[in-house]
Amino acid sequence: MALLQLSAHFSSSSCAFFGDDDVLSSTSKTLPLLRRNVKCRCIAEPVEMMQTVYKTKVSRNENMAKLQAGYLFPEIARRREVHMLKYPEAKVISLGIGDTTEPIPEVITSAMAERSYALSTVAGYSGYGAEQGEKNLRAAIAETYYGNLGIQETDIFVSDGAKCDISRLQILFGSNVMMAVQDPSYPAYVDSSVIMGQTGPFQKDVEKYGKIEYMKCTPENGFFPDLSTVSKTDIIFFCSPNNPTGSAATREQLVRLVQFARDNGSIIVYDSAYAMYISDDCPRSIFEIPGAKEVAIEISSFSKYAGFTGVRLGWTVIPKQLVFSDGFPVAKDFNRIVCTTFNGASNIAQAGGLECLSPQGLKAMHEVVGFYKENTDIVVDTFKSLGFKVYGGRNAPYAWVHFPGRSSWDVFEEILEKAHLVTTPGSGFGPAGEGFIRVSAFGHRENVLEASKRLKELYM
Amino acid sequence: MALLQLSAHFSSSSCAFFGDDDVLSSTSKTLPLLRRNVKCRCIAEPVEMMQTVYKTKVSRNENMAKLQAGYLFPEIARRREVHMLKYPEAKVISLGIGDTTEPIPEVITSAMAERSYALSTVAGYSGYGAEQGEKNLRAAIAETYYGNLGIQETDIFVSDGAKCDISRLQILFGSNVMMAVQDPSYPAYVDSSVIMGQTGPFQKDVEKYGKIEYMKCTPENGFFPDLSTVSKTDIIFFCSPNNPTGSAATREQLVRLVQFARDNGSIIVYDSAYAMYISDDCPRSIFEIPGAKEVAIEISSFSKYAGFTGVRLGWTVIPKQLVFSDGFPVAKDFNRIVCTTFNGASNIAQAGGLECLSPQGLKAMHEVVGFYKENTDIVVDTFKSLGFKVYGGRNAPYAWVHFPGRSSWDVFEEILEKAHLVTTPGSGFGPAGEGFIRVSAFGHRENVLEASKRLKELYM
Repeated sequence: MALLQLSAHFSSSSCAFFGDDDVLSSTSKTLPLLRRNVKCRCIAEPVEMMQTVYKTKVSRNENMAKLQAGYLFPEIARRREVHMLKYPEAKVISLGIGDTTEPIPEVITSAMAERSYALSTVAGYSGYGAEQGEKNLRAAIAETYYGNLGIQETDIFVSDGAKCDISRLQILFGSNVMMAVQDPSYPAYVDSSVIMGQTGPFQKDVEKYGKIEYMKCTPENGFFPDLSTVSKTDIIFFCSPNNPTGSAATREQLVRLVQFARDNGSIIVYDSAYAMYISDDCPRSIFEIPGAKEVAIEISSFSKYAGFTGVRLGWTVIPKQLVFSDGFPVAKDFNRIVCTTFNGASNIAQAGGLECLSPQGLKAMHEVVGFYKENTDIVVDTFKSLGFKVYGGRNAPYAWVHFPGRSSWDVFEEILEKAHLVTTPGSGFGPAGEGFIRVSAFGHRENVLEASKRLKELYM
Repeated sequence: MALLQLSAHFSSSSCAFFGDDDVLSSTSKTLPLLRRNVKCRCIAEPVEMMQTVYKTKVSRNENMAKLQAGYLFPEIARRREVHMLKYPEAKVISLGIGDTTEPIPEVITSAMAERSYALSTVAGYSGYGAEQGEKNLRAAIAETYYGNLGIQETDIFVSDGAKCDISRLQILFGSNVMMAVQDPSYPAYVDSSVIMGQTGPFQKDVEKYGKIEYMKCTPENGFFPDLSTVSKTDIIFFCSPNNPTGSAATREQLVRLVQFARDNGSIIVYDSAYAMYISDDCPRSIFEIPGAKEVAIEISSFSKYAGFTGVRLGWTVIPKQLVFSDGFPVAKDFNRIVCTTFNGASNIAQAGGLECLSPQGLKAMHEVVGFYKENTDIVVDTFKSLGFKVYGGRNAPYAWVHFPGRSSWDVFEEILEKAHLVTTPGSGFGPAGEGFIRVSAFGHRENVLEASKRLKELYM
């Protein structure tokens, strides 16, 4: 079937391609207001001309059709742009996407610059690296974050970020697994599950996909799910310190989680991307918990520690002890996924990651984290002073602010419209996030202070 | 079921985790030679101790189990390592994996170093970039490679490399499509299809996966498939200049391919990662062919133009005119895939890519390509002088050398064993590659000359 439509994007040279082709003339029906059977006329300047609208016979992937609206953060970016068109003079401040704002410490960027320059030398040039990451970086990650936990260099897979590894893990698991997820949670867990065909359709009445177990995390249960009500699933995505609620699970809670996984034979995918924000004695890694190595994978990232959101560097830990029901090591299949669908993180980013884990790099990262934690205090204090119930913040760069009885998107729009501040609507993270907004503490100090001032004007 | 096995990887601190846990004692059977029911003893030094071998109840993804052996290139790397252990004194030269060897031109690395340093400044810092790539880079790619072909900036998706985008495209298509592929071809097309569950099991007798259409490319058909014998499929992966055969399709051949796709309603995924190696008038892009924008996606990469194999930067072009059978734009779904499973290429790599497309960067890339093309001439002349039939080479950095009647892996082993040269066995690219080896022309000049000398000694 061929339809006709206007196009203004053809120059004379591309037009020439259509010269003696029959593509343009096989027209069966037309769109409204468009002439039919108009031949291509090649002239010197781009011009509105007729072009076939042809449909392939390839069916759209039905899993893609299940996805609701846009992915959350691009949708927020879109609304922000609309707002900025409406108020071109407004100074919009983002406390939304969780994007880092502070410069990367020089010790780290210098290492990346040096690696860049070295790539212009015979001695310093390197081509394809190991898909799993450079050996010294894997070793440094194992030593720094898992030094006494029995995790080895070869258990570490360096990646271009936790979000990317979430999808690679979903490819690994395939379409026949069922997953559980904290509700609310970072949207990539659920969306990647939908894309891989693990789920049923979206059920509008409950705002959940079929065949996903949503583990409700609310103030009532201290943001840790009541495992006695959670159905057995193959995979359990669990993020601590949690994005978006900002809550970190305690050791005792994680012991229960690991036992729950062991009892059910499940695999936990533990997202520890905010572990360095923990102030108290909550575990930094799931592998601090006895027996976790046989039931857990951990994903993490340099993004929120060193401002690497744009540089792209993370890692995934898959202990050799973790095996499928047939005894096949999960790490072996993940290695195959990484070798086939990925080609390693950028060597320049890896040089930066290695420097992050040097003594001076670690010190610099702690300073970055400390700065954002001060921001978090400002945000938390602001909302508390206004009488809101605020959760999180202590062990994470996110405050989870309660607006009981209100729609998250309405609150999002209110704050954007009246204070020119971008937040994140809690319902974007799952149905249990309704009535909350997530306020990120990433931002320059003056912006956070200005945001605090505007919020006080709005809600005082 | 819990088994016991020796482990020497637990320090005292991790051992402590097992203190009052019942994990270790629930032993139902033991492995040979291992004592059972030995309790964990915590002492100061790492020690061999008993550790539960626990199996999850998660079934291994059956698609992963279909995959044969290792991915080709890691397997070659493994054999190379075995060889180097056997001959520690040998100077092994790789003409194997197709990895670039020459330093990246300074104009390009300087741009990356500057971007690195800038990330330490308030003005130059950037966090998350657009998942689709930076606007100026997308515009530069559209202008440089598709200037007069009607491809727009918004049709370009910047990525961390063509291999990664191949898998993202497979996720986009899902498990219910059937694909055709050149035989032989770059293994990532087939392997990613297997992983996504598009195929049947591997059929050992014909060395093909079920439900993949293998389009035979041999000297007899000039390495372009006889489309009259090719079954209709949803997707057609097509690489030109081809890896591994080194052949580039002519304009007339690509017109036939596009017409074939249009007749069948198929989508072509056109891999043009070697387009800059074309010396004659073969098309550099599928979009030079009339009607291609409605049936084709193009993937490409900076890897082989600027030595970016380790830096990681590529792109995919999905014209807005390409739609599924229900009229839904393919690019819209791909955008969702990119936003959900990826977070953009490294901003430092993107700064390099932008510089690649400046006048001086383009000049530098042409010099890099020219150097490798001289290498290719040396390789081709060497094998020709020895009486071999050599294909490819003219428009690609690969020579495809025929050893009629012999096993590719045997030839690979012979050349490795006797000349300490790593090549790539043709059968690793598909059954029609049997009897061939791919010889890559990436390498320092002295190594290519030395390889030529050794080959002459071996086969003279």
